[in-house]
Amino acid sequence: MVRFVGVENMVRWVRSIGVEQIVADMVDYLEADFTRWDQFDKTPRVASHSPYGVIELMPTSDRQTYSFKYVNGHPINTKIGRQTVTAFGVLADVASGYPLFLSEMTLLTALRTAATSVMAAKLLAPPNASVLSLIGTGAQAEFQALGFRSVLGMLTLRVFDTDPQAVQKLRTNIEPLGFDIVDAATVEDAIAGAHVITTCTADKTKATILRDDMVASSVHINAIGGDCPGKTELDAALLMRSNIFAEYLPQTRIEGELQQLDPKWPATELWEVLTGASPGRTSGDQITIFDSVGFAIEDFSALRYLSDSVADTDFFETIDLIAEPSDPKNLFGLLD
Amino acid sequence: MVRFVGVENMVRWVRSIGVEQIVADMVDYLEADFTRWDQFDKTPRVASHSPYGVIELMPTSDRQTYSFKYVNGHPINTKIGRQTVTAFGVLADVASGYPLFLSEMTLLTALRTAATSVMAAKLLAPPNASVLSLIGTGAQAEFQALGFRSVLGMLTLRVFDTDPQAVQKLRTNIEPLGFDIVDAATVEDAIAGAHVITTCTADKTKATILRDDMVASSVHINAIGGDCPGKTELDAALLMRSNIFAEYLPQTRIEGELQQLDPKWPATELWEVLTGASPGRTSGDQITIFDSVGFAIEDFSALRYLSDSVADTDFFETIDLIAEPSDPKNLFGLLD
Repeated sequence: MVRFVGVENMVRWVRSIGVEQIVADMVDYLEADFTRWDQFDKTPRVASHSPYGVIELMPTSDRQTYSFKYVNGHPINTKIGRQTVTAFGVLADVASGYPLFLSEMTLLTALRTAATSVMAAKLLAPPNASVLSLIGTGAQAEFQALGFRSVLGMLTLRVFDTDPQAVQKLRTNIEPLGFDIVDAATVEDAIAGAHVITTCTADKTKATILRDDMVASSVHINAIGGDCPGKTELDAALLMRSNIFAEYLPQTRIEGELQQLDPKWPATELWEVLTGASPGRTSGDQITIFDSVGFAIEDFSALRYLSDSVADTDFFETIDLIAEPSDPKNLFGLLD
Repeated sequence: MVRFVGVENMVRWVRSIGVEQIVADMVDYLEADFTRWDQFDKTPRVASHSPYGVIELMPTSDRQTYSFKYVNGHPINTKIGRQTVTAFGVLADVASGYPLFLSEMTLLTALRTAATSVMAAKLLAPPNASVLSLIGTGAQAEFQALGFRSVLGMLTLRVFDTDPQAVQKLRTNIEPLGFDIVDAATVEDAIAGAHVITTCTADKTKATILRDDMVASSVHINAIGGDCPGKTELDAALLMRSNIFAEYLPQTRIEGELQQLDPKWPATELWEVLTGASPGRTSGDQITIFDSVGFAIEDFSALRYLSDSVADTDFFETIDLIAEPSDPKNLFGLLD
């Protein structure tokens, strides 16, 4: 039998542990896995593009455990009341090839994306960062806010979205949790005084959410929304005067902000900073950019943490996904 | 909610329809999908190899429906009482990216492999074929026997396996269903007088199950077991004097018997024969070989048939694999 965490169990589990504790724990799992980077099989995700959006499979393996995630990206979905991103994922045993664990990953991806942002900001944000700017207050926004508060103690949010209802939704959801939320009328206003800027917008176009002249210095930009070919958020000139960090460059150069620059433009993979092989932020006035596109090892870490966390609980059920004939050569015998 | 066909429901469904009817129906779906070959996105499967075996993801799409299969191949598993191959698969809606249907595919793959063999043999077997030779009587054998009887009326089986218990298992399972089964002491004996020879052995080595000098003429060889790099069953000299047919040549030249020959060795894709673009068997004394490795479109067809077949039945349940917040931008609201 395969363990299965569906949406209802996922919601119960998140309520039980709390978003802030989950992001903090997940950062530990991410750091542990990114630190042993060379143990993983790494491959760019396998994407099936259509005029409506993209469906992707994201596999990886540390040679003991295999994982993959199914995830779609359909920005037009929100116009018909559906989500841009839905996902589910699987852990399997490399030695036998048998799947072990299946989970919804729409919520889990939101948590792991926030945790990955926080892991990068721990390495790259200016010291004593306290003001977080959120450009785009869609489905990811609350997870960012809670994650940054949990691990980096950031309490002040300056927020902007072209949809005022999305801003109001954020305020309703998390102001009661003790945040100081500043509504900004423009992107310029939203980033004024911010130490970390998260851009998380959904349009599948080459947008310029942050123009080069808007951004002064001494800031870390957590660029989440540019994550597939033809979908970017930052001015190329801004990229060129910043220090750029990424998850896995062969994928980011195709899908991230880096698609705008020469394929040899210098950039650093996060694991190099974690292991000390490369420096992170080297001066206070630097602009650092985490060109985040989402990578399979993050889903591996998130599933590994979830699987460990629910092991001795009732936050999962079992499903008969895999046939188990008593004689493996007698599959037909199952039909008797 | 996502519809889910687990092992128990799969077994109930197969018992309800019957293996022979299912293979016959599935051949119809396969022929319909192979005939519209150019509507599909085609990509070689994404394989993760380890010293123990391989885990693969096999995606495809006809631009309306997307499918993928998770499947492993671990020949060593049978030594510890586990199966060489287990699988599950998903259908999703290309327009929204939402998954719609999840199914066990260990049994379904056995059925679709038999159906694909039968589809090829309909095009390639000598006229009036009645004797089927089965070399290797593992988990696939009964499905082959029933499929070939259902669609091509083949009633006589000549069987050989290095494991006498596997032969006895086949006899116990299907002799009561009216087959004339001849135990052969050697491979030579098993193929004597056969019109179709199915080779389906599991060792992950370059084996020579059929040597060139064993095979005379006027036969169709259905070569199933050679399906990944380093795993073949046929003598290269036998290949070179036969007409070779395949599912999708970019994959077969890496994984099939064709890996033994020059990458430009002539071979024909089955869809070309189905549409009349290329000839199938052109003379009675020819040797034809279906160099079968299994391709994603076959799983697409099998899932499509299963999904249609169970639609108005109770052979499925629903699972909450995908979060559905009422406001798609308010994923966090699910946690309230």
